[in-house]
Amino acid sequence: METYYDCLPCFMRQTLDAVRMVISEKPAQETILRQILKAVSKMDFQQSPPVMAQYIHRKIRTLSGCDDPYKELKIKYNQYALDLYPEMKAAILDSPNQFETAVRLAIAGNIIDFGASLVVDQTMIKQTIQSSLTDPLIGNTDQLSDAVSEANKILFLGDNTGEIVFDRLLIEILPMHKVIYSVRGMPVLNDATMEDAIQTGMTDTVQVIDNGSDAPGTLLEDCSQKFLKIFNEADLIIAKGQGNFETLSHINKNIYFLLKAKCPVIASHIGCKTGDAIVGRFKDF
Amino acid sequence: METYYDCLPCFMRQTLDAVRMVISEKPAQETILRQILKAVSKMDFQQSPPVMAQYIHRKIRTLSGCDDPYKELKIKYNQYALDLYPEMKAAILDSPNQFETAVRLAIAGNIIDFGASLVVDQTMIKQTIQSSLTDPLIGNTDQLSDAVSEANKILFLGDNTGEIVFDRLLIEILPMHKVIYSVRGMPVLNDATMEDAIQTGMTDTVQVIDNGSDAPGTLLEDCSQKFLKIFNEADLIIAKGQGNFETLSHINKNIYFLLKAKCPVIASHIGCKTGDAIVGRFKDF
Repeated sequence: METYYDCLPCFMRQTLDAVRMVISEKPAQETILRQILKAVSKMDFQQSPPVMAQYIHRKIRTLSGCDDPYKELKIKYNQYALDLYPEMKAAILDSPNQFETAVRLAIAGNIIDFGASLVVDQTMIKQTIQSSLTDPLIGNTDQLSDAVSEANKILFLGDNTGEIVFDRLLIEILPMHKVIYSVRGMPVLNDATMEDAIQTGMTDTVQVIDNGSDAPGTLLEDCSQKFLKIFNEADLIIAKGQGNFETLSHINKNIYFLLKAKCPVIASHIGCKTGDAIVGRFKDF
Repeated sequence: METYYDCLPCFMRQTLDAVRMVISEKPAQETILRQILKAVSKMDFQQSPPVMAQYIHRKIRTLSGCDDPYKELKIKYNQYALDLYPEMKAAILDSPNQFETAVRLAIAGNIIDFGASLVVDQTMIKQTIQSSLTDPLIGNTDQLSDAVSEANKILFLGDNTGEIVFDRLLIEILPMHKVIYSVRGMPVLNDATMEDAIQTGMTDTVQVIDNGSDAPGTLLEDCSQKFLKIFNEADLIIAKGQGNFETLSHINKNIYFLLKAKCPVIASHIGCKTGDAIVGRFKDF
């Protein structure tokens, strides 16, 4: 997906949120803000928004001297999601359509996205879980279920910390021997990396690989050869979240996107309403 | 008031709103967006936000080749406010405290601000008028009433089209021989100019001058000598709206600001809530 003009104010808002969270000194904050404004003024709008987000967070990590500014928050949200795991697991097992319920919860977990909003509290997560079980779902879970049955190699592209626990719940009812789960190659925002996969038990569930990249999405040109081999061999890809959608919606592969459309630009690109839960291939929307 | 970091995303949002309203060709829109991003990356944050807004709207006027892109909208909102005039006038005359009611309505008129939001419809204006009569007012209208009684020369700094009719209602219960009303020197956004003062009957009510500037506020260094003479001679200044507040809150004069705090930055600067109606001198807040 290209960068829309409406992404420009949002880049500045994201930068501001991030520098305030990570850097306390005003002059350093200002330096980054000016650098990002200048970079955005020159950016190729044909690139997807995560390309700029990658640049922003690289700048922030460099200037803050901190490799993983969101580390504490990531651990906290992983733990919070792990605390919710038993009741979510029970909700799936008690459900008449376990697959659909697990998909709904996996999408609900996508609310834990510090790129879309810094205001993600536990009340909001609980409410999203609750409403996800009954709110309309844009797309067809039966189609995804059939795709899972037909697939030989499933690559599940993870997204954020906390959310990774919700992904695990879905993966646990998939044919796990077929599934490889991928995380980002390096820390960026609150996106899940290998450390998070270990903390949340994902590495005890299925094979986990990292994609070699620090983009908050899946920029194929930036991913490792090892990851690309698995990506290319997979006959079904399940991609979580906005960042993966923005970077892969134009790719001609059998990709099912699972996300909450948290911003009006994505919603308009998909043709849904902001806040909608989405499951399906882009061409089917 | 300085430019806060939170103004930066808003500059981009304002630019986007304005270019979409005024310029239909995507390449021209993109050119302006890139120029504004670059200009903001270099701007002096000690300057007030209307300095950047002035720059943005100059660029838009130059590239669109249109001196007054908001002309039709301005006429429309003036006419709409004129249509409301009789019932607002009656509300003031029927009120036990006519001065306070007129101040409340003048502040309500400040909702017609295309800088703060493009979404200003007639329902919103009517709702704002209705609630303005009973909502809490931050500040003291008796103090302003006393200041009016004590003053010899009152300069009333106008703000937007439509809103100018609300100002007229307040001016009509002031000692009009003491009052001079000022408008912007040239078109910028939906701000009122001399044409609007004529259309709305303000020129038939009190003396009207223009300030010689195309900033959406009162940048004294940008105003004409004629305006500055009157500004300096006035012993009471009544300043409407956010733009006048942002450009004059640091000036050591007897200035009463009347505005709706429509953005969180202004609200925080004043120490009130977003949406609050404000009347008073900055030092008294």
